[in-house]
Amino acid sequence: MSGIITMTTDFGLSDHYVGVMKGVVLSINPKARLIDISHQVRPGYIFQAARLIKEAYLFFPKGTVHVAVVDPGVGGDRRPILVKTKGHFFVGPDNGLFWSVIEDNEVAEVIHLTEKAYFLTDVGHTFHGRDIFAPVASYLSRGTDPHKMGRVVNDPVPLDFPMPRETGGILAGEVVRMDHFGNLITNIHGDVLVGFLRGAPSLIRVGSLVVEGVRKTYAEAEEGEALALIGSSQYLEIAVNLGRACDRAGVSSGDVIRMKVEVNRA
Amino acid sequence: MSGIITMTTDFGLSDHYVGVMKGVVLSINPKARLIDISHQVRPGYIFQAARLIKEAYLFFPKGTVHVAVVDPGVGGDRRPILVKTKGHFFVGPDNGLFWSVIEDNEVAEVIHLTEKAYFLTDVGHTFHGRDIFAPVASYLSRGTDPHKMGRVVNDPVPLDFPMPRETGGILAGEVVRMDHFGNLITNIHGDVLVGFLRGAPSLIRVGSLVVEGVRKTYAEAEEGEALALIGSSQYLEIAVNLGRACDRAGVSSGDVIRMKVEVNRA
Amino acid sequence: MSGIITMTTDFGLSDHYVGVMKGVVLSINPKARLIDISHQVRPGYIFQAARLIKEAYLFFPKGTVHVAVVDPGVGGDRRPILVKTKGHFFVGPDNGLFWSVIEDNEVAEVIHLTEKAYFLTDVGHTFHGRDIFAPVASYLSRGTDPHKMGRVVNDPVPLDFPMPRETGGILAGEVVRMDHFGNLITNIHGDVLVGFLRGAPSLIRVGSLVVEGVRKTYAEAEEGEALALIGSSQYLEIAVNLGRACDRAGVSSGDVIRMKVEVNRA
Repeated sequence: MSGIITMTTDFGLSDHYVGVMKGVVLSINPKARLIDISHQVRPGYIFQAARLIKEAYLFFPKGTVHVAVVDPGVGGDRRPILVKTKGHFFVGPDNGLFWSVIEDNEVAEVIHLTEKAYFLTDVGHTFHGRDIFAPVASYLSRGTDPHKMGRVVNDPVPLDFPMPRETGGILAGEVVRMDHFGNLITNIHGDVLVGFLRGAPSLIRVGSLVVEGVRKTYAEAEEGEALALIGSSQYLEIAVNLGRACDRAGVSSGDVIRMKVEVNRA
Repeated sequence: MSGIITMTTDFGLSDHYVGVMKGVVLSINPKARLIDISHQVRPGYIFQAARLIKEAYLFFPKGTVHVAVVDPGVGGDRRPILVKTKGHFFVGPDNGLFWSVIEDNEVAEVIHLTEKAYFLTDVGHTFHGRDIFAPVASYLSRGTDPHKMGRVVNDPVPLDFPMPRETGGILAGEVVRMDHFGNLITNIHGDVLVGFLRGAPSLIRVGSLVVEGVRKTYAEAEEGEALALIGSSQYLEIAVNLGRACDRAGVSSGDVIRMKVEVNRA
Repeated sequence: MSGIITMTTDFGLSDHYVGVMKGVVLSINPKARLIDISHQVRPGYIFQAARLIKEAYLFFPKGTVHVAVVDPGVGGDRRPILVKTKGHFFVGPDNGLFWSVIEDNEVAEVIHLTEKAYFLTDVGHTFHGRDIFAPVASYLSRGTDPHKMGRVVNDPVPLDFPMPRETGGILAGEVVRMDHFGNLITNIHGDVLVGFLRGAPSLIRVGSLVVEGVRKTYAEAEEGEALALIGSSQYLEIAVNLGRACDRAGVSSGDVIRMKVEVNRA
């Protein structure tokens, strides 16, 4: 185990909720290292958190535990789970948060967390991040065998992750994330784009924005000019050099969006 | 000592103020572990910070130092203090920030920080978080005896924390905190509510919002439905499943609010 | 080396970008300590980040590595650099971010980072924070000799940092930063102000705001009253006790501003 625990939640940073989870972790494993991925997931928006986790986890050392708490079903009958892949552990509610991780890994064991010895003494109905997920993650980071924490299940809840499709000579995808810079990140992987274009120039439409060609980096466009590129996560991204692509595409910056993207061979 | 130092301030995260305090801590105790509770307290709003600290500190290991800097009187005659309870230490201005902690603990020693050997060399008039509280907390986390840092005083500044009252068959309390999800958290402890209701059904009013009954968790209400429950800190809380109770009660989300809550036996 | 790495970026906290940089650091040096200065620099605003770094770095122990990524020219021909002063290391793009640091230190060695052995295996065109600066910082924190990472250069890109000037009996400066409290921080150092006033009373104008005299701390003014003081970084600052000076001066709080300040001997 690396001793590192990452955290992804929709708790925001104004309350004490994240701090309390860290206190619980350090009470169990004083040597744990806590790294925030994001606490600014839009409340209840599982899809956004799933995407952040998918894009982040491989940059951490093997033996890292990734806790994610976007949990609108807390206190109901959704299961608390642990996912174990080759090298990484994921802890959170069974609501699709880790679906991409499960799909991306040949081996992914899912364990329904039932063993109360690894929870806080009093588990409430509203804050399983504190009562279940933080303590389980902390025990894991100390080396506790995950199989002691519950039993293996084979039916984790899937997430409807949109996939790009080619129809009528058009590659149709979706904007699945908008980042802090207003960049629009799509679900079209660079390899899929290259396979579709086969060397032809491209014309890409997102909302009211039309972009010609695919560049390598932001500064290849003029200041204020829109451009397409393969972003740092290897997906097609629409940006504006020194500006906000979301504004240009008619999306207000606070939104979590799922907009159509169309790629044409020009 | 756990070596852990928590931080609660109204400094926000856009400036370097919090980072600088951490640099000062690590210059004195390179092994200190720094955990943020919140830096988004509304500027100068002691009451909000006091509430966060009260709800957070017991989830940290014994021997933890909790620094809080919401300090509108900095540079004036308010005293810098240290509060020592069984197991926890608190460092900050003597303006009521730690009043709940003092009230909640049978033994709480208050020390007026006067010994300059534990401050930065040049103490200014505007940033005692950096010049006094960070270094004192760091020395404490290293095991320095608090009695070396000043003398015991018996008159810490109190905070007017509102208490719920029963009058005319109505339990009247206050909303004392609104969280990131728009939940309205009151000062009515779950035990007080149960004692008042004695098994009768309840009708709860907050602003324009009226809620029947008390549920166990958010998802027991329909999507968009308002509900009452005993939240993760054991206090009565008004929420909307997958929505924002503050909007429904007519409170805009940026506000720090003190609204009346009335519980009736229905 | 202190093992501490500070981070200053314009990445915000909603995406996974900062977390990913930390994962990269910990993959190379599992013992590194990561401290955030700010991730809320206005996108692309090098000047603001340069100011935060200048005001923060000396509060960290010697042997600390300061990473800064405000990098509108990423993927173009701007150089990745490392700056080594007596005691501190700085890693980021060569775009002026570290210019104040270079000017403030008698000895400052600048190294153009070219040695790919200290980068991630695949360096992309859009996220050098992850691919170059995080790994270089991590190797440095482990004690790797910076001269192995590239060659010394003597022409780092300067930053046009405004300096106050005395003309016609008026000391004219600029507001160079507005903080979370709405305080307006100028480029007029306390020593410069004292030298200009030579004991005379002062009259200071910023936008529509006129302030008489220089106080020691916020609470010396009435609630809501504007005041001037020498702030925690030793620069002249305009504030409002328990209020927001920016609102009074007619600056909206989200702005990054460069407004004129005029000091008159009254």
